Amino acid sequence: MELNNYAKQLLEKIKVQKPLIHNITNYVVMNYTANALLACGASPVMAHAYNEVSEMTNIADALVINIGTLENEWIHSMIIAVAAANKKGIPVILDPVGVGATTLRTQTALKLLRSRNITVIRGNASEILALADTQSLTKGVDALHSVDDAIEIAKKIASMYSSIVAITGPTDIVTDGKNILKVNNGHKLMGYVTGTGCTATALIGAFCAVDNDYLRAAASALAYFGVAGELASKKATAPGSFMIALLDELYSMTPLELQHYAKIETG
Amino acid sequence: MELNNYAKQLLEKIKVQKPLIHNITNYVVMNYTANALLACGASPVMAHAYNEVSEMTNIADALVINIGTLENEWIHSMIIAVAAANKKGIPVILDPVGVGATTLRTQTALKLLRSRNITVIRGNASEILALADTQSLTKGVDALHSVDDAIEIAKKIASMYSSIVAITGPTDIVTDGKNILKVNNGHKLMGYVTGTGCTATALIGAFCAVDNDYLRAAASALAYFGVAGELASKKATAPGSFMIALLDELYSMTPLELQHYAKIETG
Amino acid sequence: MELNNYAKQLLEKIKVQKPLIHNITNYVVMNYTANALLACGASPVMAHAYNEVSEMTNIADALVINIGTLENEWIHSMIIAVAAANKKGIPVILDPVGVGATTLRTQTALKLLRSRNITVIRGNASEILALADTQSLTKGVDALHSVDDAIEIAKKIASMYSSIVAITGPTDIVTDGKNILKVNNGHKLMGYVTGTGCTATALIGAFCAVDNDYLRAAASALAYFGVAGELASKKATAPGSFMIALLDELYSMTPLELQHYAKIETG
Repeated sequence: MELNNYAKQLLEKIKVQKPLIHNITNYVVMNYTANALLACGASPVMAHAYNEVSEMTNIADALVINIGTLENEWIHSMIIAVAAANKKGIPVILDPVGVGATTLRTQTALKLLRSRNITVIRGNASEILALADTQSLTKGVDALHSVDDAIEIAKKIASMYSSIVAITGPTDIVTDGKNILKVNNGHKLMGYVTGTGCTATALIGAFCAVDNDYLRAAASALAYFGVAGELASKKATAPGSFMIALLDELYSMTPLELQHYAKIETG
Repeated sequence: MELNNYAKQLLEKIKVQKPLIHNITNYVVMNYTANALLACGASPVMAHAYNEVSEMTNIADALVINIGTLENEWIHSMIIAVAAANKKGIPVILDPVGVGATTLRTQTALKLLRSRNITVIRGNASEILALADTQSLTKGVDALHSVDDAIEIAKKIASMYSSIVAITGPTDIVTDGKNILKVNNGHKLMGYVTGTGCTATALIGAFCAVDNDYLRAAASALAYFGVAGELASKKATAPGSFMIALLDELYSMTPLELQHYAKIETG
Repeated sequence: MELNNYAKQLLEKIKVQKPLIHNITNYVVMNYTANALLACGASPVMAHAYNEVSEMTNIADALVINIGTLENEWIHSMIIAVAAANKKGIPVILDPVGVGATTLRTQTALKLLRSRNITVIRGNASEILALADTQSLTKGVDALHSVDDAIEIAKKIASMYSSIVAITGPTDIVTDGKNILKVNNGHKLMGYVTGTGCTATALIGAFCAVDNDYLRAAASALAYFGVAGELASKKATAPGSFMIALLDELYSMTPLELQHYAKIETG
């Protein structure tokens, strides 16, 4: 109950403060992500040039980094932007899209995690596993077969990089390495809309921008997005109309509705 | 009445002539902008490589430049494309997205404005203000608190660069530095859809492509877009479904409906 | 009947196998294309960096190359990716967007076609014509005035590059240079949604990923997309809502419905 009340308060704060979220994200999801941030009450900006990112980060309230369509020049900009965010003290959210699939993605994610302060990492279970020093993990990909095993991985990665880790799936897991929150909201049609993972990451940025209890803020953002998916599924049964209904619900959902429908619990 | 009749005639011309609009625009809005241009009857093309932009501009009827997600190579291409457009004599519309927020954006916009012939500049009030030589402006950002003060800024910028200036907001202002047109169409949900400003700019490109009375053409485009927003608001009350209804209305609105609903007046 | 049954079987295979489709495509259509691939049951990935494309192609089941928003670095990556796809033996689908409009596009398409093995080329009639050694074609653009003349062009290009050629239009034509298939599905509103051609190309990638009878697979994909357009037109009469309904139908259409509505015939 207390967790749901906290989620409600954060959504209220976003709508009042309209935090500016600086995104360096992938081409596929830029439009949808920007619309989702607008719908929740935040203010999105996309900027990626190495010679403007630090100025943009300096006027932002959170930085979201997404490696979904990576190239060298963008990596350079991401490093500059994260440094600026660290210096300013605003939260940095990392979405390691496709990490493990190519060397470039894996090295980029690890470089950012090892050299900079990343506040929250959000990925699916296989992406988070790919961030581990696999030598030290005895179970490998089989570790992902249960929620309990996913929790174990999440805790290890969180401790390894001193970050909050959020693994999204049927049950979302959020941990700082010690404390665990589980979120049981969402709908399976979200898996048929490109960029819903990336959008979850951007929304974590908005929630972390207005309060520095990042563990609970990240869980609140995932509950908010999941509840919107549940409400959207009552209006649409196929992915095209669902993705539009999802934006509508992000906009229409009141903080009280979020409090009512959120399923956040300690793990 | 005469202004509304002119707007009607331009929309008819677009649907007959299907002007080709060359856009060098930002990643976030490319898809929505292209769909809006198609919906109104124009033909969009996006191309940004420095080694093809002048060829593309040479077959186009208008050029739209938008600095929303800038980088050095794109700036180079913008300069080449604007030069080609100036040489060919087709209108160039500039959207200085986020100018004032970073040095890169401000310098790029000023570089284009000082070295090339820009037909129409469209931005919100703070963007247009950022284009001013602030030394010469005594009022600063406070100047934007009333429509009358926004008109004063718009006129100064228009005279400074010998361009038409369009400031969009609750009341849109369009001026060549002497004459003023006001447009009172639109709906507040447009502010919750990313890229509506950029789309307005692209539509100004379509209207200017078919007639060289650029002052009235720009105002006509803004009325057309605003009327579409008003009609869309009768079908949708949240931003996801609204942005889809907006495209539908851009397509479905007849020139006669534009004439009927447009609220364009001399200032 | 046999052709329709084949199309049904391929759609079933896509939904079971969930082939990974690696797209190096243009900015305008990335989001829509990814959503269309998800809707049909395939798994999309977008990656364009020269230092990761071969790894990504190596885990993919088909490669889709689209030159709609080209630049030098991307051309370099396309060449590397096609080489990787050829080595692995997976199908490569090329969409030569705007070829003929600029030298860069024409040279890039020809470079890929002459040096690599392209499985299927999909374009509209004027794009396919632009791929011809025009010296050898006596009729020029006039050749496109009838379906029979378009067939002649398609056969020449198919023979010239040892590829399947698909010309989409009111009647789609697919040929390997000898055999011809015609597809008579589709709806005119598809022409008012940006990227429908590019989406057709991506869907050809999904169908070719699950069977190596590429001639019939390409025709099946075009029938599938066209049927979705026909079904969508019963729910939406303007392009915004139509493009959403089109995604819905790609998801909702059963293999049996595809078999029932497809209009594929030998030429």
